[in-house]
Amino acid sequence: MDNAETGSLSREEKVSLLSGQDLWRTKALPAAGIRSITLTDGPHGLRYQGEAGDHLGLTGSQPATCFPPAVAVGSSWDPAVARAIGAALAAEATALGVDVVLGPGVNIKRSPLCGRNFEYYSEDPLLSGVLGAAHVRGLEDNGVGSSVKHFAANNQETDRMSVSAEVDERTLREIYLPAFERVVTEARPATVMCAYNRLNGTFAAEHPWLLTRVLREEWGFDGVVVSDWGAVHDRVAALAAGLDLQMPYDGGAGDEAVVDALRRGEIGDDTVDVAVGRLLRLVRRGERTAAPVDWDAHHALARSLGPPCMVLLKNEGPVLPLRGGETVAVVGAFATRPRFQGGGSSKVAPARVDVPLDEITAAAVARGGRVVHAPGFPAHAAEADVAARDEAVALAGTAAVTVVFAGLPDGAESEGYDRRSLELPAAQVALIRAVAAAARRTVVVLAHGGVVSLEGWHEHVDAILDTFLLGQAGGGAIADVLFGVAEPSGRLAESIPRRLRDTAAFLNFPGELGSVRYGEGVMVGYRYHVTAQIPARYPFGHGLGYGRVETSDLRVQPAGADGAHVEVDLRNVGDRETSHVVQLYVATQAGPVRRASRELRAFEKVRLAPGQTTTVTFDLDRRAFAYWDVRHGRWVVAAGDYGIQIGRDAQTVLLEQSLTLAGDHIVPVLSIDSLIGDWFSHPAVGPSMEKALRTALAPLAADFAGTEPPEALGGEADPLRAIPLRQLLDLLGGALPAGGLDEVRRIAVSHLAAAFARA
Amino acid sequence: MDNAETGSLSREEKVSLLSGQDLWRTKALPAAGIRSITLTDGPHGLRYQGEAGDHLGLTGSQPATCFPPAVAVGSSWDPAVARAIGAALAAEATALGVDVVLGPGVNIKRSPLCGRNFEYYSEDPLLSGVLGAAHVRGLEDNGVGSSVKHFAANNQETDRMSVSAEVDERTLREIYLPAFERVVTEARPATVMCAYNRLNGTFAAEHPWLLTRVLREEWGFDGVVVSDWGAVHDRVAALAAGLDLQMPYDGGAGDEAVVDALRRGEIGDDTVDVAVGRLLRLVRRGERTAAPVDWDAHHALARSLGPPCMVLLKNEGPVLPLRGGETVAVVGAFATRPRFQGGGSSKVAPARVDVPLDEITAAAVARGGRVVHAPGFPAHAAEADVAARDEAVALAGTAAVTVVFAGLPDGAESEGYDRRSLELPAAQVALIRAVAAAARRTVVVLAHGGVVSLEGWHEHVDAILDTFLLGQAGGGAIADVLFGVAEPSGRLAESIPRRLRDTAAFLNFPGELGSVRYGEGVMVGYRYHVTAQIPARYPFGHGLGYGRVETSDLRVQPAGADGAHVEVDLRNVGDRETSHVVQLYVATQAGPVRRASRELRAFEKVRLAPGQTTTVTFDLDRRAFAYWDVRHGRWVVAAGDYGIQIGRDAQTVLLEQSLTLAGDHIVPVLSIDSLIGDWFSHPAVGPSMEKALRTALAPLAADFAGTEPPEALGGEADPLRAIPLRQLLDLLGGALPAGGLDEVRRIAVSHLAAAFARA
Repeated sequence: MDNAETGSLSREEKVSLLSGQDLWRTKALPAAGIRSITLTDGPHGLRYQGEAGDHLGLTGSQPATCFPPAVAVGSSWDPAVARAIGAALAAEATALGVDVVLGPGVNIKRSPLCGRNFEYYSEDPLLSGVLGAAHVRGLEDNGVGSSVKHFAANNQETDRMSVSAEVDERTLREIYLPAFERVVTEARPATVMCAYNRLNGTFAAEHPWLLTRVLREEWGFDGVVVSDWGAVHDRVAALAAGLDLQMPYDGGAGDEAVVDALRRGEIGDDTVDVAVGRLLRLVRRGERTAAPVDWDAHHALARSLGPPCMVLLKNEGPVLPLRGGETVAVVGAFATRPRFQGGGSSKVAPARVDVPLDEITAAAVARGGRVVHAPGFPAHAAEADVAARDEAVALAGTAAVTVVFAGLPDGAESEGYDRRSLELPAAQVALIRAVAAAARRTVVVLAHGGVVSLEGWHEHVDAILDTFLLGQAGGGAIADVLFGVAEPSGRLAESIPRRLRDTAAFLNFPGELGSVRYGEGVMVGYRYHVTAQIPARYPFGHGLGYGRVETSDLRVQPAGADGAHVEVDLRNVGDRETSHVVQLYVATQAGPVRRASRELRAFEKVRLAPGQTTTVTFDLDRRAFAYWDVRHGRWVVAAGDYGIQIGRDAQTVLLEQSLTLAGDHIVPVLSIDSLIGDWFSHPAVGPSMEKALRTALAPLAADFAGTEPPEALGGEADPLRAIPLRQLLDLLGGALPAGGLDEVRRIAVSHLAAAFARA
Repeated sequence: MDNAETGSLSREEKVSLLSGQDLWRTKALPAAGIRSITLTDGPHGLRYQGEAGDHLGLTGSQPATCFPPAVAVGSSWDPAVARAIGAALAAEATALGVDVVLGPGVNIKRSPLCGRNFEYYSEDPLLSGVLGAAHVRGLEDNGVGSSVKHFAANNQETDRMSVSAEVDERTLREIYLPAFERVVTEARPATVMCAYNRLNGTFAAEHPWLLTRVLREEWGFDGVVVSDWGAVHDRVAALAAGLDLQMPYDGGAGDEAVVDALRRGEIGDDTVDVAVGRLLRLVRRGERTAAPVDWDAHHALARSLGPPCMVLLKNEGPVLPLRGGETVAVVGAFATRPRFQGGGSSKVAPARVDVPLDEITAAAVARGGRVVHAPGFPAHAAEADVAARDEAVALAGTAAVTVVFAGLPDGAESEGYDRRSLELPAAQVALIRAVAAAARRTVVVLAHGGVVSLEGWHEHVDAILDTFLLGQAGGGAIADVLFGVAEPSGRLAESIPRRLRDTAAFLNFPGELGSVRYGEGVMVGYRYHVTAQIPARYPFGHGLGYGRVETSDLRVQPAGADGAHVEVDLRNVGDRETSHVVQLYVATQAGPVRRASRELRAFEKVRLAPGQTTTVTFDLDRRAFAYWDVRHGRWVVAAGDYGIQIGRDAQTVLLEQSLTLAGDHIVPVLSIDSLIGDWFSHPAVGPSMEKALRTALAPLAADFAGTEPPEALGGEADPLRAIPLRQLLDLLGGALPAGGLDEVRRIAVSHLAAAFARA
């Protein structure tokens, strides 16, 4: 830090800067020219309470544009969508004098039951990271700070304030950390927010490995680590672990504890100075000139971002887009009381709300048609209303097409608790089935944050349009999509399983008695479905859109050290402009770890005019092929064959080319306890050791011959290779003629001594 | 220990007693009157090498009776079978002067791929424990020591000498330890053998929690802990952890290390004295008078133990038992070269071997029939022999019934490595399919140690007789069963999955880079199949036999504290004597942990004459209903409903009664970091705390009202309950009117102070 600027501050003053002044602001030290900065909830709209908020910070926020939440943005597969939201948030934040908008959330959707999944992008770390980085850039490039969260392994709401996520390091490195890594290293957010939960026993707020070793030392993060609100348990431990700013105001207990620890010498002033330095860099970014928000433009933006996020799951006929001039029956309470965001700290007071029924009616009338409506089911009650259902069914019988608005009620999902089932309310399923039986054509428009089951009804309807949660302009966006003004060009960012028990974390979610075992390891989401060969109802990456694009001529060239240059041709063979998501997966079984059958390693969303062709290019670096090697503590590319696959979705490979990589040349560090196989594989000492050991064992060959099965005598299956050298020497101690192992010992000692001499 | 007896020994002499003199013997100190004792491999036959063995201890053992290995005994569900083998081993051991016969192995069959599964009983800990205890009693009651092994979590051969089994404590306590616990506490084996592998990072040989805390302090074991051969890495750490006897002779390095550590004061002489005391108690059990072995009687015993172990998986027609007077085609190389035991340290040099073809021929001829034979496939080659197959198919066409001997070749499974697939060799599958198409009736007799897949052929054959590995008299036993002299009364002790990927450990077996995550937790074997609703091809507990028994009138009465008295009636409604296994499962979702849908809690094998009725009685103690509570470190019975189910197998419930248990009354120890829910649930302070806190929060009710979804406001889903008290106090610090939390603080402090005063 710049001592010139804080050298005049007392120890107490410096410490005081590291905790909130109240719910949303840091402390000012006017005499030192240090202003207070304001942090505010996001991430899909501003939840700014100003002076008018309640005391818990939960309600009463000022109106703001409610953009599509992350669940929808994830389905866009389009960083431009995420970035546009970030930029618009920056404008609204600047208007209100907000310095940091909390978010984006890049936690992985480990189970579809997580109540907060609507705030996260995807089950895939690459997709989450790319979108999170774009959101951050939208904010930061426009002068407003972001706070990527919740770092880390915060993948459930059950017991979220104290549960310990038990996750092995490879799983962390390959699944739960990469989205954070990408956001931090590529987009440089002003802050990172630590999670409430524990990771392998230690609270995230007090986790030195997470907050310092990985985040700062490995990824180079130089911004502020802020606590989730109330996440600090031990302020001194948190500070020592790398947590700079404790939020919110805690009554002064934390500051006092830090000052005491400084006095006792348990931590040094340098620790405080470094944290204060980081905070002051954030404060000094300076206040921006407030400009008024163009609410109409932001609403229009929110509307335009809807279609790229919607996923057309099914479209027989095709029934969509709707023809003009017909009678459309609109059924379902969500048509008039739309569900467009989730509950909890991210809940925005929307500046306005589009009502789907009104938007559809306007669009239909403009095309010479008409709309009739019946609610069909109560929006907020679980039990069926038979009269309402009968009315809706009768109405459906009179129309050319019936659009059913179904989904999860507000209370079914929220920050704070997890779901226990994937089912839609039974009243809605009954309505859909009854309508589908009566209607000429049935379109179901789904609104929900977490995945819902389609079982029991999906086969009876003609089309399913999954809208997730679309924010305040979702009603207009849905009308645009239904009538073909815009294309629903989203792709699933999360698998839709057939049954809850088909999901990877089924047996281990949400854990028990204070801990949750990530027993499925890296096999999360589609990685599980494709590896365990349990097909999803609709796989990750699925989405129909309104166009037809052909993919052809996949070219794969090695590039650099264990990288690849990939090209593939696209052609719009339909008759309208369309967006297409090229999905590149890598498939390999190389290396000593269990690989998922297929992993998304690159993607690009491309827009094509009718007849247009283009070539999409991907440059894959070594990371696209690497696994995290816990033995060497690094990313390792294993020598072997890699399939480069262009997938229509995670379960459907369109094109494939194979690539052979030399891989990393890793020289293992040997010890007397290393396995014989490791000794044999060592490039320097291996050949001589193998020769010496096999020579030494020759007198025993006759003993082995009749006993060991033939498969066991050579290659990988050779049990000899799985024995630590020390144990072999012990076991043979009395078995061989005197001196029989002298040469083995000589080679081992000489190798170890040489290694020691080099060290 | 008895100081009078060892007080005269020097430190070095005492230490020397704690490691082997050679491969199989302990050291003698003749001057002190201490003899050497001999340990020898088991467990299904004696592998005694005497002076004639090789130097590695692998071959050249003296002939001994090869009884059915554990995979078969497990399927008997009959402790009398296990006990009879133990008693016969004791007789053969006594004849040879052997003091301890190593075994039984009670490790759990976590994955069907484990190469050593043939040495273990079951995927279920109760069944494994009951049979292991019976085997131990058979040995110990006849004056010979046993060594229950491999303690613990040794459930694979891959990397077995160093892999770390990563297992949470509930899973250890409920799945991997109970068989050891039962054997130790009920049958009191002379020794326990530690495993090669690491458990949660620490070698089993050096694991104080395992070898001392659990084994000795909790279970009261007072015998000798012996290392698996070569399992000790750090002799001093092993001794300190509770490992008494290091085997085999290691050249003296271990003794030297212990003496050095004593000199340096790193361990005390008392540690050595205690271990020597245990060893001397074993030595002093005294030599027994050798009596000659009645080899004919042991062979006859081995034959009689075969039928109770065999499982009749399928029997359409019924084709079995075979009628006399017909032409029987016997096909398959195993008919003349039987597969009857597994490879590795347990491989016995059999005193004699029954050839199935000869036995079947004799039985057929005695009944006026005849037998024709063709090998059909080579016993030890993977590739098909088309000429041999054609010959067998032609032969099958001429016979009334064809019996195909199929199974895994010797080299397909062994100690030392795991399988990678469940498939039978393709040549055998092709033969079975071809024979089934040509034969009038087809019976497949399977021989194998680990589970094999039945897919692709099981639907084409009339009967499948699973014989596992039956030891040297299997040929005669199979003839007895085929012709109905004896009934195949076994039941599966291990699920037969439809596909490898339907098994619980599919994604996590055998681990990688030195560690294996037991990600499936307690959901092992049938627990996984029934909980994840993935049916097995043939479930745990399945087996047809030749009889028909009806089960009726299940009566369940509460008994004692959280126990139950259960009665059920049986009636033999068939026309022959038959054995029936009553399987009692408990099903519950009570408590805070995820329960398997059903768990075996009692069983009994009953023999019934035609028309005979009987009542089977079970007394279930609290352990039958308990889960291991990691928070309280003890077995806890949760209050709630429990289904008492009589199952035909693990997937088929015949009778069920429910039982409501009061459960344990656990008063949680509260702290400032306890969840609000735990404070509210506390019997003493809960009501007043809840009243005070809700009163304190009342001013904020309006803030919550519009925001929190209705489902979240009460009961279990109340998010308030999931917040630690400290965090709530922090968060509310600035939110409430001054003094608003005084009553809450007063109640909390008063409760904590009172608890402190009591402590």
